[in-house]
Amino acid sequence: MADVQQVVDRILAGDVRAAARLMRDLDDGVPGAREVLKGLYPNSGRAHLIGVTGSPGVGKSTLTDRLIQRLRADGRTVGVVAVDPTSPFSGGAILGDRIRMQRHATDPGVFIRSLATRGHFGGLTASTRAVLTVLDAMGKDVLLAETVGVGQDEVEIAATADTTIVVTVPGLGDDIQALKAGLLEVADLLVVNKADREGADRTRQDLLMMLDMRRGRDPESWQPRVYLTQAKDDVGVAELLEGVREHREFLHRDQGRALAAARRGHVRQEFLELLKEGVFRRLVRRLDQDGRLEAAVEAILARRTDPYSACEEMIRTCLDRSE
Amino acid sequence: MADVQQVVDRILAGDVRAAARLMRDLDDGVPGAREVLKGLYPNSGRAHLIGVTGSPGVGKSTLTDRLIQRLRADGRTVGVVAVDPTSPFSGGAILGDRIRMQRHATDPGVFIRSLATRGHFGGLTASTRAVLTVLDAMGKDVLLAETVGVGQDEVEIAATADTTIVVTVPGLGDDIQALKAGLLEVADLLVVNKADREGADRTRQDLLMMLDMRRGRDPESWQPRVYLTQAKDDVGVAELLEGVREHREFLHRDQGRALAAARRGHVRQEFLELLKEGVFRRLVRRLDQDGRLEAAVEAILARRTDPYSACEEMIRTCLDRSE
Repeated sequence: MADVQQVVDRILAGDVRAAARLMRDLDDGVPGAREVLKGLYPNSGRAHLIGVTGSPGVGKSTLTDRLIQRLRADGRTVGVVAVDPTSPFSGGAILGDRIRMQRHATDPGVFIRSLATRGHFGGLTASTRAVLTVLDAMGKDVLLAETVGVGQDEVEIAATADTTIVVTVPGLGDDIQALKAGLLEVADLLVVNKADREGADRTRQDLLMMLDMRRGRDPESWQPRVYLTQAKDDVGVAELLEGVREHREFLHRDQGRALAAARRGHVRQEFLELLKEGVFRRLVRRLDQDGRLEAAVEAILARRTDPYSACEEMIRTCLDRSE
Repeated sequence: MADVQQVVDRILAGDVRAAARLMRDLDDGVPGAREVLKGLYPNSGRAHLIGVTGSPGVGKSTLTDRLIQRLRADGRTVGVVAVDPTSPFSGGAILGDRIRMQRHATDPGVFIRSLATRGHFGGLTASTRAVLTVLDAMGKDVLLAETVGVGQDEVEIAATADTTIVVTVPGLGDDIQALKAGLLEVADLLVVNKADREGADRTRQDLLMMLDMRRGRDPESWQPRVYLTQAKDDVGVAELLEGVREHREFLHRDQGRALAAARRGHVRQEFLELLKEGVFRRLVRRLDQDGRLEAAVEAILARRTDPYSACEEMIRTCLDRSE
């Protein structure tokens, strides 16, 4: 890998090839890649990060594509991370969506990166944040993180955006209806996409009612909105972006008090996640090398101990001596 | 909490109230509950654990309900864990499914437990395994773990069963089609449920083709099967259970060589997960108390450092001194 500072400078200058290369290197755990990321970090934190999440099939990619289009028409540069934790085994279907989005690939104002696996960071969340840091440092005005809103990781990525958009469609089945609930709690803006379908207004009413039930009485806090869109035909997308703008203004008033508070929480969470993975990796490597891991597994299998006691014992010997 | 050995003995004798109480106590982190779990562990490992997983809406609960019914008709006792990581916020829809299953609640040969949150274990996987250990120690012949097959945790739970059943339906959308791929890799038995719908046979052919592509050339390894079911009308369920029986036989032949190998992997994974959560909790508590966590967050926010350097520094001071 080239000299770290050189790569940092190139990416800060917006060099697309250097950025793409770094993202690959980070995934592959190439020595030095993480040093570049460290060098970029002081230059991150300027972009507005928008999370777009929802169940499979609600049209997130199409909506993201429309958002890119409109943001570009406004002259803003855009970085996109599309997170897809499904196996690369038959990525054909997903490729279809991505290809639609890739029509922006020739636009130098747009950078799109798909993430399917955890890569070398050990966690999809950490990998995504690394890519967002790179895009941010490149100087993109707006970052879009698109994730499937199921599973803890994916919800977390969306929840730690500055503005979180949760997408649903009219008339989903019972189970998916329930999935939506977990997402409702992290939504700043809610979208009923495919709103030409029957029941769109009913879904909107339901969402408003659910929001009303959980709404705090604090008049100072942000009140989530509900938008009807037909992303495929670009209907309602301008209104949604106006909502994003209003939420952004909300975050920035009073010298950005709300934004600072939110980001403090996000940084704390991000740091703890990194720490969790890092400590764990280091520990497993050590226990693997000295045979203690296999010994514990053997003892549990033979029922000479149980996983809980073995774990407590291991923690005692690994952590407590350091105090 | 009563004397640990007393509670252990009661649960080993199959006392339903003591078991239910313990599960609640484990969730709530009641002191002593984990000691009971340790006491039960040596008596676990006898049940056959079946994982049932798939996307939302494919009919997992209905299928599980039918499996319970047939297993009971065969005179086998059944323990069920239904894992639902969605928010309890609007559990109405899910409650419907669960209620259907609850018709077995008055049958002393069946024990059903729903898990929605991570509880005190810090992980849904760990909580689920704890409940499965209790059910196993109670002497249930067969354990069923039903999880939504999206998100890493949920797939992991299903993947560490003795027999993993992956459920799908004909004609799902592109995105869900892709989700299926990640699950395909962990499936011992595949089910196309709602097989009266159009395209069932086509879906079955697709799955067979996908299986064929990834199939190893090892004639000794298990070859996944595909079943067509209509769980609602109890069609095809007997054949599926016959498949489970055959897979179980496969695991048990040659003095259970395949079963032992699989379980070794599962125990290793389970132990590592416990260790990860345990070490992390201990560490965060300590860093929270001495103010080092807040100091790190401040430094990152002020961009005096970056999360990666701060994390490495923290790991150095916390772990390396113990060597």
